Amino acid sequence: MQTSIQTMLKLELPIIQAPMAGVQGSAMAIAVSNAGGLGSLPCAMLCLEAMRDELNSIAAGTDKPYNVNFFCHTAPSADAQREAGWRAELAPYYAEYGIDADSIAAGARRDPFSAEALEILQAFRPAVVSFHFGLPAAELLAGVKSIGSRVFCSATTVAEAIWLEQQGVDAIIAQGVEAGGHRGMFLTEDITSQVGTFALLPQIVQAVKLPVIAAGGIADADGVAAVIGFGAAAAQVGTAYLLCDEATTSDVHRAALQDPAARHTALTNRFSGRPARSIVNRVMRELGPMGEVSPFPLAAGAIGPLRSAAEARGLGDFSPLWSGQNASGCRAVSAAQMTRALAAKL
Amino acid sequence: MQTSIQTMLKLELPIIQAPMAGVQGSAMAIAVSNAGGLGSLPCAMLCLEAMRDELNSIAAGTDKPYNVNFFCHTAPSADAQREAGWRAELAPYYAEYGIDADSIAAGARRDPFSAEALEILQAFRPAVVSFHFGLPAAELLAGVKSIGSRVFCSATTVAEAIWLEQQGVDAIIAQGVEAGGHRGMFLTEDITSQVGTFALLPQIVQAVKLPVIAAGGIADADGVAAVIGFGAAAAQVGTAYLLCDEATTSDVHRAALQDPAARHTALTNRFSGRPARSIVNRVMRELGPMGEVSPFPLAAGAIGPLRSAAEARGLGDFSPLWSGQNASGCRAVSAAQMTRALAAKL
Repeated sequence: MQTSIQTMLKLELPIIQAPMAGVQGSAMAIAVSNAGGLGSLPCAMLCLEAMRDELNSIAAGTDKPYNVNFFCHTAPSADAQREAGWRAELAPYYAEYGIDADSIAAGARRDPFSAEALEILQAFRPAVVSFHFGLPAAELLAGVKSIGSRVFCSATTVAEAIWLEQQGVDAIIAQGVEAGGHRGMFLTEDITSQVGTFALLPQIVQAVKLPVIAAGGIADADGVAAVIGFGAAAAQVGTAYLLCDEATTSDVHRAALQDPAARHTALTNRFSGRPARSIVNRVMRELGPMGEVSPFPLAAGAIGPLRSAAEARGLGDFSPLWSGQNASGCRAVSAAQMTRALAAKL
Repeated sequence: MQTSIQTMLKLELPIIQAPMAGVQGSAMAIAVSNAGGLGSLPCAMLCLEAMRDELNSIAAGTDKPYNVNFFCHTAPSADAQREAGWRAELAPYYAEYGIDADSIAAGARRDPFSAEALEILQAFRPAVVSFHFGLPAAELLAGVKSIGSRVFCSATTVAEAIWLEQQGVDAIIAQGVEAGGHRGMFLTEDITSQVGTFALLPQIVQAVKLPVIAAGGIADADGVAAVIGFGAAAAQVGTAYLLCDEATTSDVHRAALQDPAARHTALTNRFSGRPARSIVNRVMRELGPMGEVSPFPLAAGAIGPLRSAAEARGLGDFSPLWSGQNASGCRAVSAAQMTRALAAKL
């Protein structure tokens, strides 16, 4: 039986590889799409030139549907006081690593979707363009639709799903609190509003008429079959792909995912300024996972040199070790094998 | 097909009515057990005499298996400083309601399982005795087994499930973070350790050989079918029963469960001293859901008079409005109808 997402996209398998900025690029997207799933290219950390290069690679590598993903945050103005506070919290670590705090450049590159990005997309007309942290301005959204791309967007609450349906998206990604990486939340900043997949999925399915894609905690074929049986039109899976050959996951991140300590993740804003799920590491443990850091994405600037210095010693103490609450499905196989394995019980 | 819990208990339906102290007693347990599920009597807020009376009622009301549930916390010593701090936080509310803080009695009744409780159980030999917040001392646990009762206990992490298996329990209740009421956590006090049902259930099923009961976010027949299909030996459902005829749920609590605001719950220690999931109300919003309150169960003392005074005005501003993250399954029907409805898609 075909789900509505399979029909909409002429997709062989109802498996969406979650876009994961910083740990994968076009190679994974191509592999997943060629295997019959929907591969995704995360653009949040790409400059426009890199984005064009990656899209050219995908166009050369597959003729199957694929997804191009963007963040939709409002670019923040610098906040000198919060930045100073954040650096003061990190000062003992700078001292430990012999880092001159004055040498650290401000900010970090994570650009929201823009007219320039849309212009590049026009040459590629991807089957799907997906958004995180809400939607772009109405004229940009209309621009995406005008090139024939379907628009998907993450919802983390029932209220966000209803809002997205009113804005005219084509499908909603119900991002349960189990999911790794950034929470897509955009109508609230209160992390207590975030709901587990098992409670979020059925309530969103009840609340909207659109196809609903389940995300969060789906680690293997049993998980995929469970969400499809529970009303999802597709399963979006991220963490399970992080050890795949095509992933650019760092060595410390790969090691952390295979350690029993991966069972303890938390929502943290220490790495970017927005809540995101990471395996608990030293900085999260010692400073607490949530704190008064610079606004997204600027918080990444101050911690960046510590991350690099620690990783050079083989330590993930200051690295974002993105992971969902179920890392048990991670396998060091090709993304094509992973995609087929995820669909094996449908 | 019979699940292992059905076989173990000769149970008609793999439905366990979650024990919910303060909102239900023997009437609900009898109704659920007579309908083919496993009814539960929560004893945490009962004195020994009341417990014996309730057990006599159950023995008279059903010859089917039932569950008797206890908390296993260590009774705290009073902490004058924390109590003073907690009362200072509440002082503006005392003033608003004209409550003389000096008149408020300390503490609140929530006794852990004891030798005296075991002695009473011996006359009834319930099919199941279940525990929350870990297990009682070894000799008490042996005593429960010696009367022929099966021992169930909540686990909120994989580590807790493995520990419980080592202690010799007969089944594990995987309590996902979606669940209403008190978190059963006992190996950690860190609420970031708490995992969604969709990630917790499969990881506990993988980690132990015992039957695993799923709890948290299961609101209706689709939810029950989903967890059974996903490896659970039974579904434990609480919130959906809160509007049932046999529930003793207060008027303000019933109203809150039927309001769209029920979609926003949070883990809070404001009502008892331990994290528990409640619909967000005034005190949680204004003071924050988690705070430096007196240790469990003493925190309930200071807020009690505010709860009573507000409820007298029809307000649930200071009441524990226990609810899971999916209250959409609540129906004002008999507990027997609810039990059969929950099993309708198996």
